[in-house]
Amino acid sequence: MPDSEFEIVNRYFASQAFGGEDIILGMGDDAAVVSMPADKQLVVSIDTLISGVHFPLPTSAEDIAWKALAVNLSDLAAMGASPAWFTLALSLPEANHNWLAAFSESLADISSAYRIPLVGGDTTRGPLSVTIQVAGYVEPGRALLRSGAKVGDQIFVTGSIGDAALGLYLLQRQSESQVGTDYLSRDLIRRLNRPQPRIEMGQALQGIANACIDISDGLFADLSHILKASAVGARLHQAQIPLSEAAQQFLSENPPLRSTIYNRGDDYELCFCVPAEKCGQMETMAKEQYCRLSHIGEIVSGHDLQLFDAQNNLLDYRHDSYDHFMTKQE
Amino acid sequence: MPDSEFEIVNRYFASQAFGGEDIILGMGDDAAVVSMPADKQLVVSIDTLISGVHFPLPTSAEDIAWKALAVNLSDLAAMGASPAWFTLALSLPEANHNWLAAFSESLADISSAYRIPLVGGDTTRGPLSVTIQVAGYVEPGRALLRSGAKVGDQIFVTGSIGDAALGLYLLQRQSESQVGTDYLSRDLIRRLNRPQPRIEMGQALQGIANACIDISDGLFADLSHILKASAVGARLHQAQIPLSEAAQQFLSENPPLRSTIYNRGDDYELCFCVPAEKCGQMETMAKEQYCRLSHIGEIVSGHDLQLFDAQNNLLDYRHDSYDHFMTKQE
Repeated sequence: MPDSEFEIVNRYFASQAFGGEDIILGMGDDAAVVSMPADKQLVVSIDTLISGVHFPLPTSAEDIAWKALAVNLSDLAAMGASPAWFTLALSLPEANHNWLAAFSESLADISSAYRIPLVGGDTTRGPLSVTIQVAGYVEPGRALLRSGAKVGDQIFVTGSIGDAALGLYLLQRQSESQVGTDYLSRDLIRRLNRPQPRIEMGQALQGIANACIDISDGLFADLSHILKASAVGARLHQAQIPLSEAAQQFLSENPPLRSTIYNRGDDYELCFCVPAEKCGQMETMAKEQYCRLSHIGEIVSGHDLQLFDAQNNLLDYRHDSYDHFMTKQE
Repeated sequence: MPDSEFEIVNRYFASQAFGGEDIILGMGDDAAVVSMPADKQLVVSIDTLISGVHFPLPTSAEDIAWKALAVNLSDLAAMGASPAWFTLALSLPEANHNWLAAFSESLADISSAYRIPLVGGDTTRGPLSVTIQVAGYVEPGRALLRSGAKVGDQIFVTGSIGDAALGLYLLQRQSESQVGTDYLSRDLIRRLNRPQPRIEMGQALQGIANACIDISDGLFADLSHILKASAVGARLHQAQIPLSEAAQQFLSENPPLRSTIYNRGDDYELCFCVPAEKCGQMETMAKEQYCRLSHIGEIVSGHDLQLFDAQNNLLDYRHDSYDHFMTKQE
């Protein structure tokens, strides 16, 4: 016998939501009530993941839950915000208890890991999709924007680029029995399914970075948003774009896929611009954060994004950043 | 040639969002930044409308936009909150410009009417669905909850009940050429597609009502939420449940549909409980608000919802409140 919508919401989510000190009233009424620390601003972002569009159909409930909150936390990271609370709108074809149990447990895991409580939700019947709205705090005027990059700024990225794109490539082309059997594939697919939002790094970049964005649509597409918002250009050095060991090995066997890693997204690393005089301060901070940072280029005048090889030759790169209306995932 | 996701968001929504004084940074960055008045609490709610589930497939873009924000505003009304800002997650099968223009214009209309600016959004390819998260303000401790009803409280509803349910019935059973040709049908269908959230009434009920809810799933289902949260029962008088002229005429021709109006939702009226000593104050207030109020029953001990006819006979009512996982709309 199917459960009612209300029982589902109550059973799987209400009990798992831990209360923060700012949560006056959590799930179970018409709306939640939260308070806010004095002298903070609220940073809010909403993102939807749709089955077959943002994740392959066979993706597990655990991975979907993790990723749905992670991609929203990544937006908070890009603003330098600390996590405050989130709301969830879940659409499901049917009330599958195993799926809901797995989804809600994984959501509780990442919610606890990043100290961000679930305060409200809506569960409804429909094609599988997850929409989350996150809220975070920043000191007034301290949010990291896309629009502050200046000529002469040095461009950095956290972590490594392209793993998730290669993970998706693997998932789409290998038979299920092959996927994940070797450790390289597992690493790449894990990057696709379990992004680690750079929350602490984002906060530490306040007062250091002139501009910041998280890489959701691809390094080139997202850096281009900074360039457009700041009315500047950029020179990037291909050899300096950081690749994981797994990605390096994969590309050595599949060289034509190199452009994929720049033009596909799901990295959820931060790309940011730092004035030269603050680069020393930033490196000290990055060591304290145990965060890999790579210097990949510099902001220049103009409006183009140019990519150079190690011999300083201008490279042609195909702009095939993932766009939901232009590219249909297989 | 299809537009990119970013151009769609920018073109249709960014320009239409008006800035409130609390909006520090609107759409176009990784997240929005808002400030909050001192000494307020934030009330937040999220709701999804899915094509074919929450509205019939042929519903116009204008009606979908209106309803998507209205149902969320109705949650703020039920809490007694004043509108602050909202975020939008829109999933579309394709980037249809006519549809987007109509949708965004209608969204701007209701956004202006209720003085609630759009601060952030996400547009993605997928089955048609609209998720909105609203935020509103209340004075600390003044939010209207479901849990405060007490034995002896009088139960009231605003406006009239059942019009939207009958409108949906008409839409599902008449051929398109017949629908809306007579003024009664037009009235009922308009109630379905263009709910008018009771924002001012909700705020005016602060300090008067012990408990409040908005009627989204049906009068009986939603009042039952109050009863459960407050651990009380209720006696309702069928003859006192307010019907519009259109609904009265329709029911006189189709008597078996009477239970539909109690058990189906989409009314977006407020149902609330007032202690006897505050009923006078409430009636004065309702006159100032030009809001029709009907006394439909009283809170009693126990946990049952009982419905009586004019001769005080207990009526059997079928609990067929719309539940997304139990009832499939045709």
